Amino acid sequence: MNIKYPNGQSYQVNVDKVQAKKQVKTKKTTYSNRGMTLENDLNVTNEQYLAKGLAVIHKKPIPIQVVNVNYPKRSAAKITEAYYQKASTTDYNGVYKGFYLDFEAKETKNKTSFPLKNFHEHQILHMKACCDQKAICFILLRFSSLNRVFVLPFEKLNWWWNQQSEEKGKKSIPLKQIELEGIEINYGFSPRLPYLDAVDQMIQSNIS
Amino acid sequence: MNIKYPNGQSYQVNVDKVQAKKQVKTKKTTYSNRGMTLENDLNVTNEQYLAKGLAVIHKKPIPIQVVNVNYPKRSAAKITEAYYQKASTTDYNGVYKGFYLDFEAKETKNKTSFPLKNFHEHQILHMKACCDQKAICFILLRFSSLNRVFVLPFEKLNWWWNQQSEEKGKKSIPLKQIELEGIEINYGFSPRLPYLDAVDQMIQSNIS
Repeated sequence: MNIKYPNGQSYQVNVDKVQAKKQVKTKKTTYSNRGMTLENDLNVTNEQYLAKGLAVIHKKPIPIQVVNVNYPKRSAAKITEAYYQKASTTDYNGVYKGFYLDFEAKETKNKTSFPLKNFHEHQILHMKACCDQKAICFILLRFSSLNRVFVLPFEKLNWWWNQQSEEKGKKSIPLKQIELEGIEINYGFSPRLPYLDAVDQMIQSNIS
Repeated sequence: MNIKYPNGQSYQVNVDKVQAKKQVKTKKTTYSNRGMTLENDLNVTNEQYLAKGLAVIHKKPIPIQVVNVNYPKRSAAKITEAYYQKASTTDYNGVYKGFYLDFEAKETKNKTSFPLKNFHEHQILHMKACCDQKAICFILLRFSSLNRVFVLPFEKLNWWWNQQSEEKGKKSIPLKQIELEGIEINYGFSPRLPYLDAVDQMIQSNIS
């Protein structure tokens, strides 16, 4: 049988190549490219929310200290020496129905728990200060190997953060607990990651 | 009479120098170093508000696209090629008593009006979108030659912004109008620029 590609080209089986491929140790499906997907998905989602007039949420730029800039003629200013600075806040904030939202988004390749080392003291302190001002603070967690995403309210994260220093304190949050304490987000088309549904639940449970 | 400095050294009058100085044309007091003071004053003020647990407000980092980074051994990553990106929001946002605040801060050397060219379309659109989400949006204006600072609510700025395109539209907001439509902020020690007092007035007038 003459197999053809959709573009009309004939499909030529190259026996040598097929055998060579078979000798390659069968690899498990890799998810190595998924490291940036949560950030991309959130950027798309935030644009969709903005376009629909539902919320104004942006990722903050990475703080960079500029030391040297060249101004070549007829072209854009070129920064030739700069250094990354330590952030003092979380990555995302914005406004939704009069509420100030503040959150951090992280991914793990782990399948059974989310390591707390993904978070930093300054992020915890920042979210605590925001919560004291009646902000809605949470973390967005993605298990990249499972492709599952959760919203976990800050007060839950804070509990897990604090127990780390206790005797027999865990260094990660078990997925089973995240399933109980968090709100799972299912991927959609528009919005791609409808995390405001989880925020609505957080608002309702705070009010009622 | 033998005049001495506080450290005990004798004061030697150098007649040549004195005469040379007299020949220099007497300059008016300059305010050329004041360009950065509003940003500095706001950074100090925001730190003071944060330390007192009154509000969590930060200046957003300038967005920069990093193209090349060197990782020298035993020292910090050095960015060797990067470019400024166009901002899509205002410079400041944060949370105060459950309210989302969003504002832009600008200075002018003008003495009688504030030029509207200090603002950009994307800032206006961003503040409009935030206001639709019940945010509190405003601009902080400093007349550097007069050392006077005002908070002007976004809805007032928006009116002035829109009239620009009309026939005989003004390209700047007269100080007299800013005195009427805005709220003046007086410098203090802590907070240095108590702009939340103006925000309180904005909240009260919206609610009542």
